[in-house]
Amino acid sequence: MENLKIILASGSRDRAKSFERAQLDFEIIISDFSEEEFKGKELSPIELSIKLAKMKVLDVKKKMEFKGIDAIIIAADTLVEFKGNIIGKPMDENHALEILKKLNNNTHKLISAIAVTRTFNDKIISDYDITSVSFLDLSIDEIKLYIKTGEWKERAGAYSIRNKASLFIDKIEGSPSNVIGIPMHKLFLILKNEFNYNLLGQKI
Amino acid sequence: MENLKIILASGSRDRAKSFERAQLDFEIIISDFSEEEFKGKELSPIELSIKLAKMKVLDVKKKMEFKGIDAIIIAADTLVEFKGNIIGKPMDENHALEILKKLNNNTHKLISAIAVTRTFNDKIISDYDITSVSFLDLSIDEIKLYIKTGEWKERAGAYSIRNKASLFIDKIEGSPSNVIGIPMHKLFLILKNEFNYNLLGQKI
Repeated sequence: MENLKIILASGSRDRAKSFERAQLDFEIIISDFSEEEFKGKELSPIELSIKLAKMKVLDVKKKMEFKGIDAIIIAADTLVEFKGNIIGKPMDENHALEILKKLNNNTHKLISAIAVTRTFNDKIISDYDITSVSFLDLSIDEIKLYIKTGEWKERAGAYSIRNKASLFIDKIEGSPSNVIGIPMHKLFLILKNEFNYNLLGQKI
Repeated sequence: MENLKIILASGSRDRAKSFERAQLDFEIIISDFSEEEFKGKELSPIELSIKLAKMKVLDVKKKMEFKGIDAIIIAADTLVEFKGNIIGKPMDENHALEILKKLNNNTHKLISAIAVTRTFNDKIISDYDITSVSFLDLSIDEIKLYIKTGEWKERAGAYSIRNKASLFIDKIEGSPSNVIGIPMHKLFLILKNEFNYNLLGQKI
């Protein structure tokens, strides 16, 4: 087990950072799966994020099978839910402003799903976590100043909790790693219980 | 105001990282204040952490006054409270093990106080935040593997939420930056409301 590769099937710099900070030995292989075809479907935010995580993990699994490399493959998907609506990644600065004005002085839900599988193995395990995130009350000028940092780019909800957004995040309820894009404690439990792989280390 | 220096009166690498990630322009000047003389006093955890943050900020304020440099000075103090007892930084691996065994499969409180002042200014503002942190149930062997990472060093509660401890932190309730050692949202509000200094930027 010790030489078994861990593949992070995600292009998210935040997820890669979470893995690095947890001292995991991993490689990144990004899926070619296109999310677009699911956009119009009637799925709840939780169903949608699980579905997307599974599609991503299956795509990278195929690649690994083609290459003949045994590995544990991990994918994730993060969505913001606010008043029953799904909020994704902003398209541009104006969209980021629109999103942050909604989330301002309010509480939203951050949903991250993960899907885990292994090459040459039929098992696919998925799970998700929900974290509530509350923002302080910022003025429009302050939101515009925040947007200038560029932290909104490629991030569901248009903010980065680990960076300048820490100044206006009042409170969260749930897992902090989930807000960053991958519920690390769920990953730890899935790998330990379902794949016999302990991320805290293989030996004492 | 734009050239006003920000001094972080703390030697904590985690607090410095929080400031860096929030893109703050700051310098570190560590106080010479000794915490030892307060250890025996009958103060509640909140009173103690506020007291310590104030003593640190006053010590560095004196240094700045001596140098004749105008600056905003920020100090903080972090304590872990578990079942009414204060848990500080571990002295060695055995002490870290003892602390983590207590916190394991349980919820503790993380208290961070901040104190803010300005050179040549009598105003000292302090505040604090409390965050509940819940750990999964680890085996003794897993705790020992975690201790091997060295993350316990110099950290109240013997863990680092941003690093490998993310694997076993199930849930928090409160501010995530507070767990890292400084409640950034409280700092943002104090600087804005009491010192007319906006950390999101001084101009649109």
